[in-house]
Amino acid sequence: MAKVVTTVARTDPAISDGFAALGVATAHEAQDRTGLLNPRLRPIQSGASISGTALTCEVAPGDNWMIHVALEQAKPGDILVVTPTSPCDDGYFGDLLATSAFARGIRGLVIDAGVRDVADLRRMGFPVWSKTISAQGTVKETLASVQVPIVCAGVLVTPGDVIVADDDGVCVVSRALAANVLEKAHRRAAMEEEKRRLYTDGKLSLDINDMRTRLKEKGLIYE
Amino acid sequence: MAKVVTTVARTDPAISDGFAALGVATAHEAQDRTGLLNPRLRPIQSGASISGTALTCEVAPGDNWMIHVALEQAKPGDILVVTPTSPCDDGYFGDLLATSAFARGIRGLVIDAGVRDVADLRRMGFPVWSKTISAQGTVKETLASVQVPIVCAGVLVTPGDVIVADDDGVCVVSRALAANVLEKAHRRAAMEEEKRRLYTDGKLSLDINDMRTRLKEKGLIYE
Amino acid sequence: MAKVVTTVARTDPAISDGFAALGVATAHEAQDRTGLLNPRLRPIQSGASISGTALTCEVAPGDNWMIHVALEQAKPGDILVVTPTSPCDDGYFGDLLATSAFARGIRGLVIDAGVRDVADLRRMGFPVWSKTISAQGTVKETLASVQVPIVCAGVLVTPGDVIVADDDGVCVVSRALAANVLEKAHRRAAMEEEKRRLYTDGKLSLDINDMRTRLKEKGLIYE
Amino acid sequence: MAKVVTTVARTDPAISDGFAALGVATAHEAQDRTGLLNPRLRPIQSGASISGTALTCEVAPGDNWMIHVALEQAKPGDILVVTPTSPCDDGYFGDLLATSAFARGIRGLVIDAGVRDVADLRRMGFPVWSKTISAQGTVKETLASVQVPIVCAGVLVTPGDVIVADDDGVCVVSRALAANVLEKAHRRAAMEEEKRRLYTDGKLSLDINDMRTRLKEKGLIYE
Amino acid sequence: MAKVVTTVARTDPAISDGFAALGVATAHEAQDRTGLLNPRLRPIQSGASISGTALTCEVAPGDNWMIHVALEQAKPGDILVVTPTSPCDDGYFGDLLATSAFARGIRGLVIDAGVRDVADLRRMGFPVWSKTISAQGTVKETLASVQVPIVCAGVLVTPGDVIVADDDGVCVVSRALAANVLEKAHRRAAMEEEKRRLYTDGKLSLDINDMRTRLKEKGLIYE
Amino acid sequence: MAKVVTTVARTDPAISDGFAALGVATAHEAQDRTGLLNPRLRPIQSGASISGTALTCEVAPGDNWMIHVALEQAKPGDILVVTPTSPCDDGYFGDLLATSAFARGIRGLVIDAGVRDVADLRRMGFPVWSKTISAQGTVKETLASVQVPIVCAGVLVTPGDVIVADDDGVCVVSRALAANVLEKAHRRAAMEEEKRRLYTDGKLSLDINDMRTRLKEKGLIYE
Repeated sequence: MAKVVTTVARTDPAISDGFAALGVATAHEAQDRTGLLNPRLRPIQSGASISGTALTCEVAPGDNWMIHVALEQAKPGDILVVTPTSPCDDGYFGDLLATSAFARGIRGLVIDAGVRDVADLRRMGFPVWSKTISAQGTVKETLASVQVPIVCAGVLVTPGDVIVADDDGVCVVSRALAANVLEKAHRRAAMEEEKRRLYTDGKLSLDINDMRTRLKEKGLIYE
Repeated sequence: MAKVVTTVARTDPAISDGFAALGVATAHEAQDRTGLLNPRLRPIQSGASISGTALTCEVAPGDNWMIHVALEQAKPGDILVVTPTSPCDDGYFGDLLATSAFARGIRGLVIDAGVRDVADLRRMGFPVWSKTISAQGTVKETLASVQVPIVCAGVLVTPGDVIVADDDGVCVVSRALAANVLEKAHRRAAMEEEKRRLYTDGKLSLDINDMRTRLKEKGLIYE
Repeated sequence: MAKVVTTVARTDPAISDGFAALGVATAHEAQDRTGLLNPRLRPIQSGASISGTALTCEVAPGDNWMIHVALEQAKPGDILVVTPTSPCDDGYFGDLLATSAFARGIRGLVIDAGVRDVADLRRMGFPVWSKTISAQGTVKETLASVQVPIVCAGVLVTPGDVIVADDDGVCVVSRALAANVLEKAHRRAAMEEEKRRLYTDGKLSLDINDMRTRLKEKGLIYE
Repeated sequence: MAKVVTTVARTDPAISDGFAALGVATAHEAQDRTGLLNPRLRPIQSGASISGTALTCEVAPGDNWMIHVALEQAKPGDILVVTPTSPCDDGYFGDLLATSAFARGIRGLVIDAGVRDVADLRRMGFPVWSKTISAQGTVKETLASVQVPIVCAGVLVTPGDVIVADDDGVCVVSRALAANVLEKAHRRAAMEEEKRRLYTDGKLSLDINDMRTRLKEKGLIYE
Repeated sequence: MAKVVTTVARTDPAISDGFAALGVATAHEAQDRTGLLNPRLRPIQSGASISGTALTCEVAPGDNWMIHVALEQAKPGDILVVTPTSPCDDGYFGDLLATSAFARGIRGLVIDAGVRDVADLRRMGFPVWSKTISAQGTVKETLASVQVPIVCAGVLVTPGDVIVADDDGVCVVSRALAANVLEKAHRRAAMEEEKRRLYTDGKLSLDINDMRTRLKEKGLIYE
Repeated sequence: MAKVVTTVARTDPAISDGFAALGVATAHEAQDRTGLLNPRLRPIQSGASISGTALTCEVAPGDNWMIHVALEQAKPGDILVVTPTSPCDDGYFGDLLATSAFARGIRGLVIDAGVRDVADLRRMGFPVWSKTISAQGTVKETLASVQVPIVCAGVLVTPGDVIVADDDGVCVVSRALAANVLEKAHRRAAMEEEKRRLYTDGKLSLDINDMRTRLKEKGLIYE
């Protein structure tokens, strides 16, 4: 039974917006290396780094009807997250839908399938992370659900969760943990800044992180 | 038996040249979503959009001899379309062949295999859509046919057909239908322009395309 | 038994440095089409062309500990070559390790696995050829060997061999043959320059390389 | 933080055991075509059809330590479901672990990674559905969680859910819905029996399911 | 525009039936190494070897409606050849459709997509060559064409052509050439019989086929 | 420069023959988890377990000429190991070559490419481990080397090394280490026998291998 859930609690924007500057790798580390979508999702552009709240959408293979339904549910700050009910590489999304999405306040698209009109999407500055690029058109015949929990590229995404996306890929942070993860991510970023300075000076991580004893205990031999 | 067909009827340039401005997605839709080559073919550059007439060429795996034969058959406005007789990722084509191809009036290359010297190809502005990038060299030992109908990346391409290629991929339009498809493509582009305006204003496709009744009939539930 | 070999003989820099200007395709041809790493290794940047001496490093799946060990073995002019002991796409290397690698004189990274922080790596100008891009973090628990002969992306790499990498991929030239291969590569580059001139003038390779007789003998038919 | 949940509510065996005779395709249809694990999971044997309750287990890449931990949590009627925290094809499980699993009452293994000793596993009659077969060994260094909800081959599996596996693949049915889905599956199987009889007699589904009107409405043309 | 062509000329059964005993490799060689479908199509059974006439069928991704339409067009001796209009791995075909197909005289299925109920299909002895095995169900919403020329697994198949399928894969022989190819295939099979005898006696192909001179001319060195 | 090395030192048969009974997983473990060929190599049969000495052979893509050359170099107890100079899935080897190989004393084939006539190969009992099955024919035009060190499926194989192959895949053991590895493998097999007994009795590896302390130290939590 296909349904659209209209009463989704979204992560507080004061929190979800904070992840864009930190990026995917830091967010992923800050939540114990969980939440990373499969790296088959790649950006169609270079240099974009966004965060926002998940607007989830299932689609049938070769059928983009429910994306049209999802756009009505958008709130400013959302990122559209689309997963097909069985694997498909068709071009579900192009410049017309991007125009509509932008007008509805959507910040970008994450889709475990294909997109098209990528020259236009790049020109518009509408950021996309997709499995493939394909001009293959889709139909509008089969229902699926919008704003329900979905598995996208191997990871569970609940509507209203935080989505972080940059050149490294896409990560989801659950709404309940987002504030805590953001704080840890900031601490991690600060700590990395310090390490970066030491490495620039030629210091070795073997010394900074005191790895030599453990390497020896495990039996590493130098010849 | 390998052969070179020298008497190929090409699509009228007044028609084949018209597709470049419309692009692959529009051409593909205008001919009822047929003719799209498998999306494994990707551009090695960004932003190129070309159209022209197919100069077809079979090659043996790991052997680029017939590309040399094909170049003699080129006419200005042709796009070289190469398919191996069994799957191969070797680098069949590099900057020397591109120099020769450009001098013979060829507008670009579509190949279901690999290319090399891509830094040079980008510098020259010779557009390529390929399955992979590989420096692996090829030999010149085995014959195959030139200017015969071939299947390239899953689609039948007849010599003289229209080839359209841009950042979305590659599409073929058969010579017999090209005038008709071009007209439909122009109509489609005009219609999209109108929709783009409505979407920019925040209108929903659910309303513009009157989808609500059908969604209800199919049983979509809003919670 | 994991070990670090500290007494590696490197190719003379006067030789290893000479390959960067010639590039991968020419180096690969000059040594009889051997030494090319599998084309699944792709640059994360565009336009970089480097050469240097191989600093080899094995890593366990999902574990980047030995990269930290390898950095201590670096000498200016080295290129770090990393291979997992079984296939893995995790993000083994990011901007912190790149900062340390640069400070140790390493010119770039070749890895048959994933990297992360690619926006930073591009900004720093640290060139990378990798199998994938992934933010997936790694642990530091399992030993492997550094500066031993490894198979990376299907090719044997011995510490101190020459590594050449550009937009076409990555090639290894063994230390023993490097001087000879460099000389052949220079000759080949000169010969190609001459051909390029003839092709630009519209001459056909069929005539320049006198292919017509052999095509006829093999039975090629013109219709 | 890695944890082992020891208080898992399992589906009533009177229900979970009932799915084995119905099979994966029927179970999947009976719950609205959801719950099917990615078809990359294939049986290493032919003809096995089992159902039981999910005993879930995460593992680090190249590390099978947590499978040892999971075996202690087994109850008769469980099926072990293993997913790596990032993709890995190593051989996590062989005849020794199978011997232990069988002794603990486990009915089979579903793993989105590799297994080994498959000749022994087949000889023992221990059924396995895996992503690959590989003799590559694993270490015991890194923690992960046991009996927590996991995503395995693209689908959410909660400890205690029903797992159904046969030559078609693997399907999960959530504990809450299992009784209802089992009933629907029985009804579906009965209905198919009737259709099978009609088809054997040469009747067409076009007539049995009255498809001709709708085909005509959609515009199908007979030439 | 979707259509069903009802007036298909089939290859004479006296010819099409003759290929089953010769097999795919011999048929493929006898027509100059053309017509082989991509080896991603694999048999779900072992030891079946069939030939017959192609009944072609396009299907939309995730939609098996047109297979129902195709069954009405079947004639005894046909082999059903199905291709999706864009790549899809869903389970389009199971034991019910096989029951109907068998009753209509269809000898087997070739499909560049998935099938299900494979335990039943094996039990029934209905031979299938498919891209994958998947229990994923399909809908009946979108039209496509039946008995038109299609590209299946990279090869053009025209309705009424000969299909040959065995443990090596699937090959198509065009109707116009079938009589000639069958004759060549018989000659080839006879010639192979003679070679088999010589090889069994320990004779070398280097001598039987007189390869030593040519190897020497090409420059092969014995150390 | 292509060459055939005719003076290859083979591992003593008293050693190489001993691995067949132990199998791939045990051999691989006994040499510190090295030497395993990529698991894309799969047996075309079920239940075969062989060992012998490597007869190595390079082939050009789509060209099986050098296999004919290699057969002359065979000695009883050899296993033929074939690798293409760039990736290729063609059917390089069929029942005629198998007949000749058997007559020359070759025990089986390991090939990182395709084979054909698999129904015949199974009937003959000639064991094969290959990357794919394909009827695609090959030519005899291009030289490559025989009995030189090669990389096959990601692993270095030197002529005369031990090859072990069973349902788990293929492993190489270097000639120099073979006696030592065989001894370790026997010890390992004995130790596993003891564990198997304990597991059958329901003992847990957590207790047998005393893992509980280390799990606790690493921080595993039981809820």
